[in-house]
Amino acid sequence: MRITTRTSSDGVTERHFTLGEVPGVLWTPDGAAGPRPLIVLGHGGGQHKQAPAMVGNARRFVTGAGFAAVALDAPGHGDRPPTEEFTRLTTAHRARMQAGEDVTAGLVALHDYVAGLAVPEWRAAVTAVQELDDVGPGPVGYWGMSMGCGLGIPFVAAEPRVRAAVLGLLGPLGQTEAAARITVPVQFVLQWDDRLVPREQGLALFDALGSAEKTLHANPGNHGEVPRFESEAALRFFMRHFAA
Amino acid sequence: MRITTRTSSDGVTERHFTLGEVPGVLWTPDGAAGPRPLIVLGHGGGQHKQAPAMVGNARRFVTGAGFAAVALDAPGHGDRPPTEEFTRLTTAHRARMQAGEDVTAGLVALHDYVAGLAVPEWRAAVTAVQELDDVGPGPVGYWGMSMGCGLGIPFVAAEPRVRAAVLGLLGPLGQTEAAARITVPVQFVLQWDDRLVPREQGLALFDALGSAEKTLHANPGNHGEVPRFESEAALRFFMRHFAA
Repeated sequence: MRITTRTSSDGVTERHFTLGEVPGVLWTPDGAAGPRPLIVLGHGGGQHKQAPAMVGNARRFVTGAGFAAVALDAPGHGDRPPTEEFTRLTTAHRARMQAGEDVTAGLVALHDYVAGLAVPEWRAAVTAVQELDDVGPGPVGYWGMSMGCGLGIPFVAAEPRVRAAVLGLLGPLGQTEAAARITVPVQFVLQWDDRLVPREQGLALFDALGSAEKTLHANPGNHGEVPRFESEAALRFFMRHFAA
Repeated sequence: MRITTRTSSDGVTERHFTLGEVPGVLWTPDGAAGPRPLIVLGHGGGQHKQAPAMVGNARRFVTGAGFAAVALDAPGHGDRPPTEEFTRLTTAHRARMQAGEDVTAGLVALHDYVAGLAVPEWRAAVTAVQELDDVGPGPVGYWGMSMGCGLGIPFVAAEPRVRAAVLGLLGPLGQTEAAARITVPVQFVLQWDDRLVPREQGLALFDALGSAEKTLHANPGNHGEVPRFESEAALRFFMRHFAA
């Protein structure tokens, strides 16, 4: 891991880094020392590691609970050039969307391709940032909505260091089996009037989660209109599970 | 209002009272002075004003936020002798339940009858306890699950002093129109594996609520198995809306 910049504002230290070719950002409390819980954040489709919802939640986890938070640009997103296969899959997906065709199979293929790259990158990032003195070997949480949920489900299912997750804004999309393998506590966020993810599909993914403790939070509004108080609820959820 | 006993434990003062023929209990912080938010709690069917969920939530609202909380025995419940009509309705309801028949119409009739008495009693109780110096004219919240939701919906719809409500564990049961008249923020609690209230019915009542801000919390488990962290979520919800 190579740290490229380090800045601080409002009590939060922000380090940009690259891990191999992958650019990432790490948020920690100013003057932090010793191990602490680490939240991995996964951004939505077409977004990047510093999209407003990412920065807002990451800073809240740092200032509200003293956690560390880390985000990477997903393959084909942010500062990462798209691969040929990524371009092929997204072009086909957009064409089907514009033609008003069913986009399910294309989204499944796209998420599968991106997850195949992103999951090992996240696992490597956890290992790398936990070697820093002010992150250390604490419990790991995951937060991701929409595509961040689609990539997060195989990540949470595969990574035993992840002990709690906030997911949502997605239907099953071929992830029913991976969702059933998740056993850690999950808070699942759903928008009641989501025009991208029909209500029934969000409820079906919540239903598919294998976790004995899972809690659904549903609110009125469209895909991008998750109310601000869900940030606070995510913070409380992680605090509840990561309290010493 | 006639206060019959006054005790204190763990920072909470508990006053038992009667308002006309109706027995009630009021919880306030020890040594409280001046106005504060008041939460009215409505108990479930067959329960009473001091059932464990009532006392647990009331004490949490008092110790966690300095609120006051009040509960009455519902008509036919707790220390109140059943009326002839109440006995007739509950006997018929139990018979249908034992015969495995559809109980919907009977439950609608029972809730309608009890609500017709309970709603004016709660409104009078709010007026009476707000005359106490350590309660005063603050905002009012309502918390009620199951029958406490069935009686709470007409109460919240009718009472402009109520500014936020935590409801749940119930289907529409003839309350769709009253639910649509509710405009204050609502947190709605649903059990995903409720054997008394099918999932779809709980979702339908949430859907029927007229509130622009409404948030659904669903958790695995049967009717009586709401996880303990929902008490904390209810406290946070009221604090969010009643913060000065």
